[in-house]
Amino acid sequence: MAKPISIEVWNPSGKYRVVSTKSMPGTRWIRLLTDNDCRLEICTEAKTILSVDDILALIGDRCDAVIGQLTEDWGEVLFSALKRAGGTAFSNMAVGYNNVDVEAANRNGIAVGNTPGVLTETTAELAASLTLAAARRIVEADQFMRAGLYEGWLPHLFVGNLLKGQTVGVIGAGRIGSAYARMMIEGFKMNLIYYDLYQATRLEKFVTAYGQFLKANGEQPVTWKRAATMEDVLREADVISLHPVLDKTTYHLINPERLAIMKKDAVLVNASRGPVIDEVALVEHLKANPMFRVGLDVFEDEPYMKPGLADMKNAVVVPHIASASKWTREGMATLAALNVLGKIKGYPVWGNPNQVEPFLKESATPPPACPSIVNGMPSSKL
Amino acid sequence: MAKPISIEVWNPSGKYRVVSTKSMPGTRWIRLLTDNDCRLEICTEAKTILSVDDILALIGDRCDAVIGQLTEDWGEVLFSALKRAGGTAFSNMAVGYNNVDVEAANRNGIAVGNTPGVLTETTAELAASLTLAAARRIVEADQFMRAGLYEGWLPHLFVGNLLKGQTVGVIGAGRIGSAYARMMIEGFKMNLIYYDLYQATRLEKFVTAYGQFLKANGEQPVTWKRAATMEDVLREADVISLHPVLDKTTYHLINPERLAIMKKDAVLVNASRGPVIDEVALVEHLKANPMFRVGLDVFEDEPYMKPGLADMKNAVVVPHIASASKWTREGMATLAALNVLGKIKGYPVWGNPNQVEPFLKESATPPPACPSIVNGMPSSKL
Repeated sequence: MAKPISIEVWNPSGKYRVVSTKSMPGTRWIRLLTDNDCRLEICTEAKTILSVDDILALIGDRCDAVIGQLTEDWGEVLFSALKRAGGTAFSNMAVGYNNVDVEAANRNGIAVGNTPGVLTETTAELAASLTLAAARRIVEADQFMRAGLYEGWLPHLFVGNLLKGQTVGVIGAGRIGSAYARMMIEGFKMNLIYYDLYQATRLEKFVTAYGQFLKANGEQPVTWKRAATMEDVLREADVISLHPVLDKTTYHLINPERLAIMKKDAVLVNASRGPVIDEVALVEHLKANPMFRVGLDVFEDEPYMKPGLADMKNAVVVPHIASASKWTREGMATLAALNVLGKIKGYPVWGNPNQVEPFLKESATPPPACPSIVNGMPSSKL
Repeated sequence: MAKPISIEVWNPSGKYRVVSTKSMPGTRWIRLLTDNDCRLEICTEAKTILSVDDILALIGDRCDAVIGQLTEDWGEVLFSALKRAGGTAFSNMAVGYNNVDVEAANRNGIAVGNTPGVLTETTAELAASLTLAAARRIVEADQFMRAGLYEGWLPHLFVGNLLKGQTVGVIGAGRIGSAYARMMIEGFKMNLIYYDLYQATRLEKFVTAYGQFLKANGEQPVTWKRAATMEDVLREADVISLHPVLDKTTYHLINPERLAIMKKDAVLVNASRGPVIDEVALVEHLKANPMFRVGLDVFEDEPYMKPGLADMKNAVVVPHIASASKWTREGMATLAALNVLGKIKGYPVWGNPNQVEPFLKESATPPPACPSIVNGMPSSKL
């Protein structure tokens, strides 16, 4: 096992030991702790994924809090070990926490934090990046250029799709889906068709107002439509981006039947969860339809790809980097640190976990609160 | 020499021979000619770049018109040969015509056409695609994924730049530069700083109105600023896209001194002309600044890259595909064909070459005119 990352938080009245299972690009985090008269130590050696046994060794017989990752299995074994070591707080460095057994945390009196409010725009921008890279064949064109195969301008070299005036389809118009929709509508004058169980009222109102604004400026307005069925979106859209939650109803949402009704030269993007797409069926579809293109941030058997996908020129594949902007990762690190630090210091839970800006200001001391605790565990010292 | 492409245009009253030096993805073009009782033959074998001698052989002793490419040298030799073969029309399949000696065409009574009005949005979308690919490290992340190096989610894997709220710098705010600016401003809520010898009044007015629209909808407005010097743009912007014309004043516009004043983690995009950047200096800068990223569609010694560029992970390089959308390439082919066909048929020159939509409608016969003739050569039969 590689040398684990350990962080020690000191303050004048005592010494706390907080373990982080990964190093984090968190310059603001260090600053924040310093402002609170704490000392922070980060060891930067890392193993990619830590097992339950690895984390048990990290916790040892003295640990006040842990900052962990989506890839780890936080259940009874770890929470009871943390309790025995004197710990009271855990925070995922993620907005999701499907790796956490919240009941087990409750049984052991451990607060569970997450990091909402800083991933939306970064994730939507990655979906937009995948859309444009797939539409304009950036990855295969780059490989061609680097391989020295370019001999001179040709009319048919890497001909792709113009987005302007085409239709963008969004499956799941929640926060990220709506942010992505706006990027494609406002940035590229695409018309929207979306499918969601809930009406995206705010998005609809905005697109209506934006269309009127364009018209008032002498331009072609954009339009929106809420589809009655998902199939309507798949049939009509030129670009489709998937933003559903992953549950039984969305497992293999994109299957052979649904792939078959999409346009032959459509662009499909997935920056949500891998199992939303039947990846074996997708590989077959990519093979049979060379003008169909896909941009994928997530995979069914992550970190692996289904056989054949890595050979497809009409696929853009990136390793789950949707939230990988400096701003977001620093924000995630800051929020995770303040979740556990707030618990250690006896702070209450912040009222609105989706309004976390006050915790992220570089020039101000953060509020005395835990930014986001998902199991409502009250502070032990309040 | 590979078998050349030749196109023959027939009509009931005679037979014309039109040569195209490249095959074109022009389904609409074929249809248009058919509507006019013409027969079209396209040979699809091609050599990447044709020499003057190659084209002389293609023209032969009978040729009514030629459709050519930016990579060819159209001067006295070719225009006089075309005249001797009975020809009266030439069209570039491009909006630019710096490969054409217009005086030589005038001397030989040859009309010279180009293809304006169909490249702006496609080119600006490619610049946006390069921006997002560079900002989010899509190409290197794709290579990492395909190489099987991904082992699991890591906080510091391919951390890139969030665009929202950052500043986009545009050097040259003409049609393409302005279209690109709007994509980044509206799509990603970036603030604009631009440098141009001329005031971009229309763009400024639009961004002001758009900022007010955002504010009225309860959102943070975007801002614009016209910089007094190019250096101001380079110093202040997080993303910089180059859209100047290429002339003596813009040769090596981006040189070592100007690279040095840019932010260390800036994104630089060039989809204009290769010699605008000192490419040797750029390679050195990329080596010294791993977080500086560049997206290039054009190169100083096209089709070649300067030594070292192909090895840089912080570069995205594509083979001059800025205008490579199906819509634009079909439009270019259609306009080039209608330029020479119009001349053959004795049609007048269209009044507004930037309003070419009537020639591009799939469901209607095009107007009886040459869409865009740059040397004002009147039709011989009018």
